[in-house]
Amino acid sequence: MTDLILTTFDWVPEMPRGYVRDIRVRWGLEEAGLPYRVESVPFRNRDAGHFSYQPFGQVPWLTDGDISIFESGAILLHLAERSDALMPVDPRGRSEVIQWLFAALNSVEMASLPFSLFKFTGDTIETPGRKLFDQFLKARLQHMEAVLSRREWLTGAFSVADILMADVLRLVDRFDGLTGFPACHAYVARATARPSFVKAYADQMAHFDAADAA
Amino acid sequence: MTDLILTTFDWVPEMPRGYVRDIRVRWGLEEAGLPYRVESVPFRNRDAGHFSYQPFGQVPWLTDGDISIFESGAILLHLAERSDALMPVDPRGRSEVIQWLFAALNSVEMASLPFSLFKFTGDTIETPGRKLFDQFLKARLQHMEAVLSRREWLTGAFSVADILMADVLRLVDRFDGLTGFPACHAYVARATARPSFVKAYADQMAHFDAADAA
Repeated sequence: MTDLILTTFDWVPEMPRGYVRDIRVRWGLEEAGLPYRVESVPFRNRDAGHFSYQPFGQVPWLTDGDISIFESGAILLHLAERSDALMPVDPRGRSEVIQWLFAALNSVEMASLPFSLFKFTGDTIETPGRKLFDQFLKARLQHMEAVLSRREWLTGAFSVADILMADVLRLVDRFDGLTGFPACHAYVARATARPSFVKAYADQMAHFDAADAA
Repeated sequence: MTDLILTTFDWVPEMPRGYVRDIRVRWGLEEAGLPYRVESVPFRNRDAGHFSYQPFGQVPWLTDGDISIFESGAILLHLAERSDALMPVDPRGRSEVIQWLFAALNSVEMASLPFSLFKFTGDTIETPGRKLFDQFLKARLQHMEAVLSRREWLTGAFSVADILMADVLRLVDRFDGLTGFPACHAYVARATARPSFVKAYADQMAHFDAADAA
């Protein structure tokens, strides 16, 4: 088997630690039991080499033999095609997982990212746009609450879609955005209690702690 | 071959016409030359049946035999696996297209949607959060400008990734957000000049015009 290499930053500020998107990939790799190693690129000086792997200067990317992939959603889908611990192989099960994977990123995170950015800046000024964003997130969470109050995982079994959805909702929860959405909150607790998440989280924290100590 | 059925709203207000997300799917179906028919669900009264197909009460969804898929990204990936006009079959080419498909939705639209929503509400109040969103979009467009000034399409040939990226940038362009990004602007013009987009756009407009006349 080819060595899988996950590349992330060498260091990040305190605030995003535990939330840098390599955690989504670490989590998937742990769930699938795929061996991998982690490499680093500088956070402060992003050179042309970095941009050749990740055109927005972000992380993570994954190297799998002669294939290099950026975008955590694309990386997780790539891993899911290698492990039925992440996605079933039958066409129907597969398509259910894939639609929920996109829903996590494009229907829920699309609505939750503005919320997180407003929280991050400490901006509390009510404007018409801000009001629309709040309604947007609330509507999406209400729909997710209806879905998650009826099932343990998004599809028949835990999948890569749950990794993304739980990680997206985890960031909303960090800023107390899941108050009033008990099924969403319980889902995040259930997902993040999995040993694979616990290890992924500890590994990311240790990675950035090591940078501080260096 | 199974009949493909694309479901969209029966009617929408003037503002989103030409931009409802079924256009992304129509465009993909036209590029692939796949036969399909269009069905409608009420825009005003979204019932439990609607939510059973699309848990956020949105459109579109695609029915392909006994498989039903929501999320335009997931639908387009599904179609791309059926047509090499949308995605090459070799692993490397495939993974390049998939990463750019996610980049369109998760790196670019994630930054452009707030911009569009602010424009949509006519909100021009400068707040710290608003400033961060403007910087976020500008940074992403600068990176896309660098990418698109060097190539005709995102990967070796036109693909499903270009459908998504061009449609995302088209909405930025609608609100004059591509001023200062000539390569992005030219890319949108190039993509939307394709006969498949022209037909998809005309078909969507005709669909909603017919609802007005009914």
